[in-house]
Amino acid sequence: VINAGKSQHNEDQACCEVVCVERRPSPRGRLLSREAAPNSPSHLLPLSLAEPACLSLQGRKGFYFHYWALFDGHAGSGAAVMASQRLHLHICEQLRDLVDILQDPSPPPICLPPDPRAGPAEPSRMSLPEDDGEVPNDAVPRFHLEKVVSHESLVIGAIENAFKHMDEQIERERVSQHLSGGCCALAAVYLMGKFYVANAGDSRAIIIRNGEIIPMSREFTPETERQRLQFLEYLRPELLGKTFTHLEFPRRIHPKELGKKMLYRDQSMSGWAYKKIEEDDLKFPLVYGEGKKARAMATIGVTRGLGDHDLKVFSSNIHIKPFLSCFPEVRVYDLTQYEHCPDDVLVLGTDGLWDVTNDKEVASTVMEVLTNYEPNDPCRYTMVAQELVVRSRGVLKQRGWRMANDKLGSGDDISVFVIPL
Amino acid sequence: VINAGKSQHNEDQACCEVVCVERRPSPRGRLLSREAAPNSPSHLLPLSLAEPACLSLQGRKGFYFHYWALFDGHAGSGAAVMASQRLHLHICEQLRDLVDILQDPSPPPICLPPDPRAGPAEPSRMSLPEDDGEVPNDAVPRFHLEKVVSHESLVIGAIENAFKHMDEQIERERVSQHLSGGCCALAAVYLMGKFYVANAGDSRAIIIRNGEIIPMSREFTPETERQRLQFLEYLRPELLGKTFTHLEFPRRIHPKELGKKMLYRDQSMSGWAYKKIEEDDLKFPLVYGEGKKARAMATIGVTRGLGDHDLKVFSSNIHIKPFLSCFPEVRVYDLTQYEHCPDDVLVLGTDGLWDVTNDKEVASTVMEVLTNYEPNDPCRYTMVAQELVVRSRGVLKQRGWRMANDKLGSGDDISVFVIPL
Repeated sequence: VINAGKSQHNEDQACCEVVCVERRPSPRGRLLSREAAPNSPSHLLPLSLAEPACLSLQGRKGFYFHYWALFDGHAGSGAAVMASQRLHLHICEQLRDLVDILQDPSPPPICLPPDPRAGPAEPSRMSLPEDDGEVPNDAVPRFHLEKVVSHESLVIGAIENAFKHMDEQIERERVSQHLSGGCCALAAVYLMGKFYVANAGDSRAIIIRNGEIIPMSREFTPETERQRLQFLEYLRPELLGKTFTHLEFPRRIHPKELGKKMLYRDQSMSGWAYKKIEEDDLKFPLVYGEGKKARAMATIGVTRGLGDHDLKVFSSNIHIKPFLSCFPEVRVYDLTQYEHCPDDVLVLGTDGLWDVTNDKEVASTVMEVLTNYEPNDPCRYTMVAQELVVRSRGVLKQRGWRMANDKLGSGDDISVFVIPL
Repeated sequence: VINAGKSQHNEDQACCEVVCVERRPSPRGRLLSREAAPNSPSHLLPLSLAEPACLSLQGRKGFYFHYWALFDGHAGSGAAVMASQRLHLHICEQLRDLVDILQDPSPPPICLPPDPRAGPAEPSRMSLPEDDGEVPNDAVPRFHLEKVVSHESLVIGAIENAFKHMDEQIERERVSQHLSGGCCALAAVYLMGKFYVANAGDSRAIIIRNGEIIPMSREFTPETERQRLQFLEYLRPELLGKTFTHLEFPRRIHPKELGKKMLYRDQSMSGWAYKKIEEDDLKFPLVYGEGKKARAMATIGVTRGLGDHDLKVFSSNIHIKPFLSCFPEVRVYDLTQYEHCPDDVLVLGTDGLWDVTNDKEVASTVMEVLTNYEPNDPCRYTMVAQELVVRSRGVLKQRGWRMANDKLGSGDDISVFVIPL
């Protein structure tokens, strides 16, 4: 729902894809299936996973992954639109070097030859014994220790770097493509029996399995990332022109209060203590406000995401971007570890949903709606997503848009994916 | 057990106390009950909580807290000995300003007058209305927002700052008092119905309630704090004389491998990816090794604790201390929220215990030993602690000290508190 039905303006974007990953040096991984229209008013597209999606591999070595993502833009939709069109291609690109490695059950090789594109047919496998032979005995025995890196952590690393490359592309093309603003990004990648849920921002993913709620993400906001921001400001005060104090106070301090004692906390503290107010404490606090009103540098309410390269502190020349992170937290859910029934789902939603509807309410709506449809009715998941969106938007009454509990509906864009497990 | 019975040398220290906190400006909070002898061979002292411990308050306003702590020294016992004698006094000192505030059920005041010692009888309460009147209307309405700070978070802040002051005292007195080395610190404070468990290092606390294990701490090691260390090195490479690389690799790289691709991860990644090896990557990695062998700057296996002010990277002039944190993580357990039976306990142990005995094994030993004693027998908890220590040490056999499962016993000092809830 665009801005909860209250305006024409839309900053939420979405994408679902089945993406082929072909081994280099074959041509670039091709996209299959449909792509959500970037400015489509509804992101509730059904996706049939039963399609023979990767026929196009046609004997070439590779695999495919399923992909769903939500992008909640701010200060414009440019970054969100581009990310919805490109992030999965960056993930594909990162995975292309891993085609052989991920399909081999033995642990990934630590070291590869310089250029796999120029190497033999199975370069990553061939190189390993030779490498080992080349490493000489070292004076300190523990230098021989080798960490075993799992396949799963290679996929996590690929997704993390894909977010970084996506962010760099937005930076490069923001002028020529007129890309405004930034966006939160929440992406779910299904690959080889596992869901990888990557979140950078304040969207949220939960799994509902047998009525139980399993959180698949956490939110990154000035409140949850306070200590990271304070630590950075403390180490590099010049980044903010020394305009802000890295200390947090429960409210702004008035100059008249100099010399009194006030509650504070710094980058190392999770509790609070009193300190004597000094001149420096009168600066604006790096992190200020509570809940949805919390802001970093009095400007932004999310601390991770893509874009925002030109964002500055209001009426100043201070860049915000160094304090933001484009890296997601990636959580893994192994589908093969559990039995799933047709009512078990992964729900992805932007904050438009979660601001007014908590995990339990979402879970009970999911269960309520699914019981109204046959387990093999493919549209049942779409109906759940629609119901979640509409309930969070509410109904227009005399006193504004109201939900069933008579509270105000979400004033934000609302996007939801409901994915059967 | 000193060094698991294998030597005379001891670096573990412990302390248990009932500490009186008197309001300023009355004389300094006095210690009651016994103090663990700093170099006592056994830390399994029984403590009778039923004693009328705070009679000494004699009408003066104040409260008392119960305190247990373990200090696992390294590179000497000096820091551990001093911390075992002083940390509770620093906690007391921090709490003295909070005597009135913690005993008042209304939320703590945000702002206090300049010097509570010179103020009226109830300075913190008196000042509040006046303060509010002084804060003028501000142009931006959200400046009026005031965070509500809980009593609990004031106690957490007091404990956090007590650790900092303890660390500063060790720094000041290390030369005159010949204090060598550093120490991990794990402290449990029982105050007004809640346990506050503060951990800086690799000791561990768990609660066993009705057979269920509730973790009350996590370990701080080069592995668990890798990203914090890498972030600091990345932002301030001059701290380490550019001797180390902030990137982590699964093993050391040989110069001959320049130009090949190797797995790595940086401060933003939890997964792994391949990168082309460059000259800079040949530097020693900031974090290296796995498990108990993991080291920061090739030197130290714990990343939080007290002391270590003179610790340097081997045969260099590079100080380690800026990378260590003296701040604990504090977890709170509200005793009033649950019914407890005589078999419910809080277990504190140094890594000498946990290296060879996991949470489940500890819980089953606790339950096994407690059933051998009457529920009202006060020595039953001491017997559990003794059994936990002895089982982890093992028995001297022909092939060394062996535990019941025939694995090698702990080669470290082992200290355990078992505290009935």
